[in-house]
Amino acid sequence: MNDLDVRARVLLSRLSEPVDAHLNRRVNEIGATETAAELVAGTSPLRNAESLRIQLDRHDPERMVDADLASAERVGARVITPGTAAWPTQLDQLGERAPILLWVLGSGDLRLLALRSVAVVGARAATSYGETVARHWSADFVTHGWTVVSGGAFGIDAAAHRGALAAGGTTVCVLASGVDVPYPRSHDLLLAQIAENGLVVSESPPGSSAMRQRFLTRNRLIAAISRATVVVEAALRSGARSTAGEAAELARPVFAVPGPVTSVSSAGCHALIRQHAAELVAGSDDVLSLLDPLSVAAPVDHEPARVDDGLATREARVLDAVPLRKPASMTALVRTAGLTPTEVVAALGHLQSRGLVRRAPDGWVKQARQESVPA
Amino acid sequence: MNDLDVRARVLLSRLSEPVDAHLNRRVNEIGATETAAELVAGTSPLRNAESLRIQLDRHDPERMVDADLASAERVGARVITPGTAAWPTQLDQLGERAPILLWVLGSGDLRLLALRSVAVVGARAATSYGETVARHWSADFVTHGWTVVSGGAFGIDAAAHRGALAAGGTTVCVLASGVDVPYPRSHDLLLAQIAENGLVVSESPPGSSAMRQRFLTRNRLIAAISRATVVVEAALRSGARSTAGEAAELARPVFAVPGPVTSVSSAGCHALIRQHAAELVAGSDDVLSLLDPLSVAAPVDHEPARVDDGLATREARVLDAVPLRKPASMTALVRTAGLTPTEVVAALGHLQSRGLVRRAPDGWVKQARQESVPA
Repeated sequence: MNDLDVRARVLLSRLSEPVDAHLNRRVNEIGATETAAELVAGTSPLRNAESLRIQLDRHDPERMVDADLASAERVGARVITPGTAAWPTQLDQLGERAPILLWVLGSGDLRLLALRSVAVVGARAATSYGETVARHWSADFVTHGWTVVSGGAFGIDAAAHRGALAAGGTTVCVLASGVDVPYPRSHDLLLAQIAENGLVVSESPPGSSAMRQRFLTRNRLIAAISRATVVVEAALRSGARSTAGEAAELARPVFAVPGPVTSVSSAGCHALIRQHAAELVAGSDDVLSLLDPLSVAAPVDHEPARVDDGLATREARVLDAVPLRKPASMTALVRTAGLTPTEVVAALGHLQSRGLVRRAPDGWVKQARQESVPA
Repeated sequence: MNDLDVRARVLLSRLSEPVDAHLNRRVNEIGATETAAELVAGTSPLRNAESLRIQLDRHDPERMVDADLASAERVGARVITPGTAAWPTQLDQLGERAPILLWVLGSGDLRLLALRSVAVVGARAATSYGETVARHWSADFVTHGWTVVSGGAFGIDAAAHRGALAAGGTTVCVLASGVDVPYPRSHDLLLAQIAENGLVVSESPPGSSAMRQRFLTRNRLIAAISRATVVVEAALRSGARSTAGEAAELARPVFAVPGPVTSVSSAGCHALIRQHAAELVAGSDDVLSLLDPLSVAAPVDHEPARVDDGLATREARVLDAVPLRKPASMTALVRTAGLTPTEVVAALGHLQSRGLVRRAPDGWVKQARQESVPA
C-alpha cells in the first residue's frame, strides 16, 4: 500500500464502472499496480480488457490520474484505499464487490464513523410522516453517538441527513455521482453542510454524473458502510429495498418503520416485515436497543430499563483486563475478566463506543487518552 | 346430552363465574347433571363448593333455571351446550377453560359460522384510521364468505361489526354481559342489527352485567370461536392484546395491522409484530390469502394477480356442475366437476364471493339471478 497503489486504483476507478467483479478479482490476485500495468501494456488477461482500455487509446494514464487527483484536491477531497488506516474494514465483506477506492470529502474519519453508523434510507417520494420519522430518529441516533449514513436524495435521505445535522451530529452521504457533483443539484448546500460535519463519499471519480447503474451500486456501499439499515418509507419497488437487500446479504440488521396500510410509501416497509427481511421498529429506541443492547433503555414495550450495577461491574472488569499497550486477545480477555466470551464482546462494544478501548490488529488495548486521565 | 344436561349447565352457569377450572374439571369427570346435583345436595367435593352454593341457600335451583330460560325466551335467545349439533367444536380446545354453555341470540348457526370466521378486534380508543381499516376489511372478509367476530365495544369492535353488516355479511358479537344486556348501552341498536343478521353470544346468564373479569374471560371466547384474530389497533396494554394472546395459546393465527409509529393506538400492534406474536398484515387480501390461500388473489407484494386461464377453467367446471334448483352436495360436485375436493371448495369460495353460487341447507345451487342472465 503506497502511492503507486493509490495511483493505480485511481486509474482503475477511472477506466472501469463499478461493480467490475473480474477486475476486482484480478486486483485481489496480483494487486492494483500490476493490474493497472497489465492494462496499460495491453497484456491484461481480463475478458473485458479491451473495453477497459478504450480511454487509454486517447489519454495518457499518468495524466488521467493526475487530473483526477487535481480535481479532488480542488474541492478538498481525498482518496482512501483498501488496507490503509482510513479504510472501513467492513467494506472488505463485499468481497469481489468491494470498491477499488473511495473518494471522500469532509472532515470525518470514515473508518471510525463507520464503526458506529446506521443507514437511514427511504423513498424519494416520502410523506411528511416518513420525513418526520427520519428527521427525529436520525437526531436520536446521533445523540446516542451514532453516525447517520444515507444517499443525499430527496425525501427520506435528505430528512435523515438534516435531522442528524440539526442535532449537531455526524452524517455521511454516499453519492452515486462524484463527490464534486451535487445530486440532486438543489442539495448542493446540504452536501456542503454534510462535508463540513461529516463526509461525502463516492466510489466514482470526481466529475462523474449520477447514472442509473451507479445508484444501484451505490446502495451496496450505504449498506456495507453501516452497521445496520433502517428503511423509513419505501414503495414496493424501490432503491431503499435494494439497500435493505444488500444489508441482509452482508448479514447486517435491517429495520423497517411501519406506517398506515393506506400509504403506498409504507408498502415496501410492510413487505420487508411480512417477509421477515426486516424487523419492525416503532421508535428510535427500538433501533438503538437492537444495535447496542447494553447502552440504551429498553424498547418501548418494556418498563424503562437502567444500566444496572451488575453491568457496570462487568464493563469495569473487562476494562481492567484490557492492557494499556500490548494488545490482549479475546481469549486472554475472557480468561482475565472471568466472564463468558459473549459478555466480554458486549462489554468491549460498550467500552469502545465510549472511546475507552480500541481494537488493534492483534487484540484489544486501552485508548491512548486513557493514560493521561487520572484514575 | 339432554334436557337435564342443559338445565344442569344453566344452573352451573348461574352459580359460577367463568372461568372456574375446578368446576369445569368436575363437569368433565362426572357430567354436568351430577356436578349440579352434588352442589344442590351439599356433597360436592369442590374446594369452592361453599361459595358456589351461596345462592342455593336463598333460591330453589329449579326455579332459578326456569327463570333464566324464561328470560332468554323473552328476548328470543337460546342455550347451546357442548356436544350438541349447534356447539362450535373448536371451543373444546379451551379444555378446562371451555364455557359451560353459551347463550345465543339471533338467526345464525354458530357452529357453521365459526368454521369460517375471523375475529376483528382492537382498541376502544380507536383512531379514524383504525376504524376505517376495521370497517373496510370486515366488509372484505364477509364478501369472501367469512363471518366477522368481535366484542361489540366502542371503536374497532363496532367498526368491524358495522363494516360486516354494511356489506350484507354475517357478524357475531361476543358480549361480556348477558345477551339481553346491551353493553355499551348505546350499542343497543347495533346489537339488534347483529342478532338479526348473525348472532349475539355470551356465556353469562341473561341479566348479567358487564364486569371487568368478564371482559377478560370473554376475550378467550372471541379467540376460540374464530379461525384467526386480526388486531387492528391496540394500545400497549389492551384487551385486544389479551385476545391475541388467547388466540396464540390456541395456535390460531394472529394478525396485526401496522400504523403510524406516532400513534399510541398502533403501539400494541407493533409490539405484537416485533415479538413475533402476530404477523403483519397490510391489507384484507393479506389476511384472506393467509386464511384461505386457494381462494384469493396474491398478497399485495406481488404483481397484480389475474384469474388465470387454469383457474377460470376450474371455476367454470365447478359452476357448470352446480345445479340451478336442486342443491348438489360437495361429494356430487367433486364427482361431476372431476376435481379434487380442495379445488372444488376453492372454486366455490370464489364463485360465492362473486355471487354466482350460494350455499343451500343441503348443498350448493346457482344464485337465482344467474337464471335470468344470458349465457
